Amino acid sequence: MILSFNCLVAQSGGPTAAINASLAGVIQASVENPSINKIYGALNGILGILRDQILDLSATFKNAEDIEVLKSTPAMYLGSCRYKLDTSLKSNQYQMIFDLFKRYDIKYFFYIGGNDSMDTVARLATYAEAKGEDVKIIGIPKTIDNDLVGTDHTPGFGSAAKFVAHTILDIAHDTYIYDQPSITIIEVMGRNAGWLTASAALARNDYNKSPDLIYLPEVPFSTFDFLKDCRQLLKQKKNIIIAVSEGIKDEQGHYISSTNQTTSGSDGFGHGTLSGVGKTLESLVKTAIGCKVRSIELSVLQRSAMHCASKTDLDEAYALGQHGVMAALDGQTGVMLTLKRRTTSAYQADIETVDVRKVANQEKKVPLNWINPAGNDVTEELIAYLQPLVAGEPTITYKNGLPQYMNISHLTATA
Amino acid sequence: MILSFNCLVAQSGGPTAAINASLAGVIQASVENPSINKIYGALNGILGILRDQILDLSATFKNAEDIEVLKSTPAMYLGSCRYKLDTSLKSNQYQMIFDLFKRYDIKYFFYIGGNDSMDTVARLATYAEAKGEDVKIIGIPKTIDNDLVGTDHTPGFGSAAKFVAHTILDIAHDTYIYDQPSITIIEVMGRNAGWLTASAALARNDYNKSPDLIYLPEVPFSTFDFLKDCRQLLKQKKNIIIAVSEGIKDEQGHYISSTNQTTSGSDGFGHGTLSGVGKTLESLVKTAIGCKVRSIELSVLQRSAMHCASKTDLDEAYALGQHGVMAALDGQTGVMLTLKRRTTSAYQADIETVDVRKVANQEKKVPLNWINPAGNDVTEELIAYLQPLVAGEPTITYKNGLPQYMNISHLTATA
Repeated sequence: MILSFNCLVAQSGGPTAAINASLAGVIQASVENPSINKIYGALNGILGILRDQILDLSATFKNAEDIEVLKSTPAMYLGSCRYKLDTSLKSNQYQMIFDLFKRYDIKYFFYIGGNDSMDTVARLATYAEAKGEDVKIIGIPKTIDNDLVGTDHTPGFGSAAKFVAHTILDIAHDTYIYDQPSITIIEVMGRNAGWLTASAALARNDYNKSPDLIYLPEVPFSTFDFLKDCRQLLKQKKNIIIAVSEGIKDEQGHYISSTNQTTSGSDGFGHGTLSGVGKTLESLVKTAIGCKVRSIELSVLQRSAMHCASKTDLDEAYALGQHGVMAALDGQTGVMLTLKRRTTSAYQADIETVDVRKVANQEKKVPLNWINPAGNDVTEELIAYLQPLVAGEPTITYKNGLPQYMNISHLTATA
Repeated sequence: MILSFNCLVAQSGGPTAAINASLAGVIQASVENPSINKIYGALNGILGILRDQILDLSATFKNAEDIEVLKSTPAMYLGSCRYKLDTSLKSNQYQMIFDLFKRYDIKYFFYIGGNDSMDTVARLATYAEAKGEDVKIIGIPKTIDNDLVGTDHTPGFGSAAKFVAHTILDIAHDTYIYDQPSITIIEVMGRNAGWLTASAALARNDYNKSPDLIYLPEVPFSTFDFLKDCRQLLKQKKNIIIAVSEGIKDEQGHYISSTNQTTSGSDGFGHGTLSGVGKTLESLVKTAIGCKVRSIELSVLQRSAMHCASKTDLDEAYALGQHGVMAALDGQTGVMLTLKRRTTSAYQADIETVDVRKVANQEKKVPLNWINPAGNDVTEELIAYLQPLVAGEPTITYKNGLPQYMNISHLTATA
């Protein structure tokens, strides 16, 4: 007789189109494995564990069809949180968490999230080790920002990158139709890392050379150079398209967006929330150049749009979920699943693990040698890195013209 | 021997995901018909005719495959304009246009566009009649606004409606994940007619009752009632999603968006261009209610996004193009193609024609009995009207994760 235990899974951080695919992978691998009995899910990340808000996922996901639908449902089926564990001496949060693990007979805990969630994974694994608790704590990465170290790229990034590139190509078609000079500024998410903004370059093809300028937060932004670039380009072509990261800063490190508006709040981790760099540059162009100018903020669409998700991304996210379960059953703990790109010419990535303490609270930025010397474009090496990550289109089931997603009525609670 | 003449086609107004499908229909029907020799296209609508900027489409579209790719290419392959014919006595623009028709041996002219383009069709047909010119002038409708009279709906609307509904469902998934009260305001295009904003209601399903409030420009908007509605809803549920038309006005007829910013310009027809109602309501909620609030402007994405186009819409747009050619060959002129919905329970639409003079320069608004008495939602009748228009997903060809569109390098000219 095989001894069987339960597992618990939770999701945290900002949503992506691929984070439920990782959850689907965890559920699928757990269902298949006889040494896992029940699959529990915590609502709203670590908060749901502290509050004992636990769903029985084994009861909901009884057949392969539901798991498949979950795989292509955007955002987080289990809800999210932006909550940092209270590490003060007077706090008993660790104890509360491990008490719950005991109560639910949980031996495996999977936390799907970004930078901050990996911090939580590291802390829980360290605590378990110190206290001799036999619970395997596994981190499964996701973030549209692609800023986690120790992995070639992160699930969620490829789909967001595809949305950015696809949308910019559509905007190019929309822009070129008028016989009138114009500048279109596309504001892309990315506070400190420019990966997602860089993926705008994938919109280029035989006939479309836009975006004409790409500004990442890794390089100081000069409004003087920006206007010079715009004026120069307007001499060569009619319609200019510019991709700009929300997080670009001037030489002094001040956000460009905050020159005419303050940051509009901050999340639980003390990161400022930004908006407005597009509008800021729009008024700058209007005043200094005076041509037709428009700014477009891709907003939350870039992280939640399922209609142009990357199949490669969803498949990898799913596989990382499955391998997370295998790693836990193998006895690993305090690790994050990673993708390691092979050096073969055709794209292939292997799944490995890394000590989560080595990756938590770090940010992987775009290497400076992947940004052109003028600081207004990316290099061919960066484009070659990005290209395979957006490949392939997942099959989404539609009914009456709208996608069929998993029912999330457990999240649409009354006030 | 069949006498054969040439035809000319042009596109005008704002882009849609379906306007090239109508062009593809015109080309396909012309290719198939022995009484049409060459197919010409004018660049940038009527402007291309005045400037003699004419493409030989017969040379470009030699095979069915290219016509198929054109069918699912967003915006306008031929470029657009917003140009009203100069009708003053001293103008010789009509003469210039008919001179070009003679020069290119053109007997059939197809103009694909919205309200303003139908005005051009009406004027040219009237002129031809008065001067005894034997050129058939045919209007093929398109507009995401769905505001043309004489037709059940317009090509381009279904795809835009699908983008709005699909995106709001994705935003709902994105919004529900946080355990924190929030209001999300989605600003949808529509200056005077609320059809597109109304289609937000299609995002509702078994588990998603959002958008919770829908405001159309047909009904005066009261900020007092709006805040009351928001406060009331926040007592019942955690996350509120609101769809609002860019064109909502107060009791005095002033745009809500202009209360804290002026309109940012106007197009060639003297329509003001709007932006900012989302931001205006966002600051109102922030000040008056103080909960987490975000506004999202769907911007040009709603009219150019090919990745969630409606198959029904593209197929109808294509068929209208084909039928335009048939109508011209039948000797009709000064007509616009229309869609007439059958009263059968399953959706079906017949293609007919209407005298374009009866439809030009008019606007079809949402009937007031399709808006609820409180003026903050739409009725079931309106939802039933909208539903079939978003049905079906077209097959888009992808290469390396990006869509394969028709090459539009003829539009990306140097300055």
